[in-house]
Amino acid sequence: MMPSTVSASPLRLVAVTGGTHGNEMSGVFLVKHWLRDSSELVKDTFAAVPLLANPKATEKCVRFYERDLNRCFTMDILSSPELQDDPYEVKRARELNRVLGPRGSPNAFDMILDLHNTTSNMGVCLILSEAHQHLEMHVCHHIQNQLPNYNPCIYLYADPGANLYDLCSVSRYGIGFELGPQPQGVVRADTLQNMRTLVQVTLDFINQLNKGMEIPAFEVDVYQHAGHVDFPRSPDGEISAYVHPSLQDRDFSPLHPGEPAFMDFDGKTIPYSGERPIYPVFINEAAYYEKKIAFIVAEKVHISVPALRTNSG
Amino acid sequence: MMPSTVSASPLRLVAVTGGTHGNEMSGVFLVKHWLRDSSELVKDTFAAVPLLANPKATEKCVRFYERDLNRCFTMDILSSPELQDDPYEVKRARELNRVLGPRGSPNAFDMILDLHNTTSNMGVCLILSEAHQHLEMHVCHHIQNQLPNYNPCIYLYADPGANLYDLCSVSRYGIGFELGPQPQGVVRADTLQNMRTLVQVTLDFINQLNKGMEIPAFEVDVYQHAGHVDFPRSPDGEISAYVHPSLQDRDFSPLHPGEPAFMDFDGKTIPYSGERPIYPVFINEAAYYEKKIAFIVAEKVHISVPALRTNSG
Repeated sequence: MMPSTVSASPLRLVAVTGGTHGNEMSGVFLVKHWLRDSSELVKDTFAAVPLLANPKATEKCVRFYERDLNRCFTMDILSSPELQDDPYEVKRARELNRVLGPRGSPNAFDMILDLHNTTSNMGVCLILSEAHQHLEMHVCHHIQNQLPNYNPCIYLYADPGANLYDLCSVSRYGIGFELGPQPQGVVRADTLQNMRTLVQVTLDFINQLNKGMEIPAFEVDVYQHAGHVDFPRSPDGEISAYVHPSLQDRDFSPLHPGEPAFMDFDGKTIPYSGERPIYPVFINEAAYYEKKIAFIVAEKVHISVPALRTNSG
Repeated sequence: MMPSTVSASPLRLVAVTGGTHGNEMSGVFLVKHWLRDSSELVKDTFAAVPLLANPKATEKCVRFYERDLNRCFTMDILSSPELQDDPYEVKRARELNRVLGPRGSPNAFDMILDLHNTTSNMGVCLILSEAHQHLEMHVCHHIQNQLPNYNPCIYLYADPGANLYDLCSVSRYGIGFELGPQPQGVVRADTLQNMRTLVQVTLDFINQLNKGMEIPAFEVDVYQHAGHVDFPRSPDGEISAYVHPSLQDRDFSPLHPGEPAFMDFDGKTIPYSGERPIYPVFINEAAYYEKKIAFIVAEKVHISVPALRTNSG
């Protein structure tokens, strides 16, 4: 049964990470800026730490050097002994776990804000692992209330109890800011400015929380990961149809069974063949071609979040 | 003095190349399709040959493997003896020159249509080396007349007499189709469809030309390469300001001295400091960050193109 009120202690150790994927440029540029001048990360109850998560991928302007860093924070990897020929990102994940974690320990950071971009038309997407972290839900709800013109959507990437693998899982709380569309390797002023505003609104809210406050319970729609759909392929494994023009850029809109999903080279429409409506997200994300994902399937879930009481420590 | 009428013989050897940059996906996907089924490239006076220009970069979905292939078709490279440790693209350029050229020889292909994408908002851009190839200008003008809703712009990338370096320079005539915006590594249905239509309109026109026709002289505006502008940088070489939101996506629109070009991290606008209006193109192209190019400077030039008479061979 859900508690009527949850309480939380102050968040003193907060990191803002960029370049977890080295070609997602809003976070790369902002973190590099904050490493030179971190004044806007300093609040009166804490100072957020800027950190470039994957320096080698950032230098080469690629998503990753040897392996996707944001899939490397598994217990398997974090608890394994270091081998000399481990991939760079495996070593880096353990290093970040030492700096920002260790995961689950009392020394772990209170919160990581991890900055990402996508080529998909995701707008402003707030990514949480799961819904049971009520403080994170309050932060996201605050963002939704403060920045209604951004129309921020909450996406839960993990099933409850699933093994987590992302950078945010190292700290007690974590939120991924996923902004798009922006091509890999490009800084768009509008996207960077939105990202910067999101970080400011979040840090200011943490600062308020740290001074002690009570926030009422609320209900909210979230998008829960429920699988993915690959591109249609010919027998040799090559992609044989591309995302249908009527699905392209429609992230977070419902897709009903029978509606167009793909179009092949003869102009033939291939409909979505599921049995119930879904909410596609990360439609046509560049980095997901190699993962054999044309779009992620999400379900819209209405959840209740209990009231939150924070104390000033 | 310009001739009143130029004549041209039929174009029998035509190649349509994609994947010259391996992460520009419209051409990669279309050429892979045509390699399976080339029926739409077959006209009654000729059959265009589909060719994947940089297979290794295409396989890895990167612009290039070791060096930008589309800068490797210089006389220096093409005439040098092959060395074992030459970069992959240097070897590939010589190979393509043997297949589609040799440049300047009677065996060279009549025309190459080279398919490209850009992250910039270039719309439908037709790239020629220079204006003096009157047949190419007639092809571009035909495209402009046939597809006015695409608003195709003609961009001349080379100064007259300059050393050419691109794939199209290997054949007698060559046109680059540069479509954007499209992120690297992504296939957008709309962009792919526009590219496919462009190729069809062009091949159909070549087919008409090959049957003998006369086309009157005309005048047209083109955009002539005139330099480039780098991002503002701090003393350590890092980019210190990004493309101004009012310049972003405004390719082919005039930029006057004093108008915003960049914005720095303090929100300060950095104006364009040139002495006369320019037409920026390739604004914020991902692949040009490493070339230290924030945008290409073009000048709008009004040119006269003589009448064209073709014979049926």
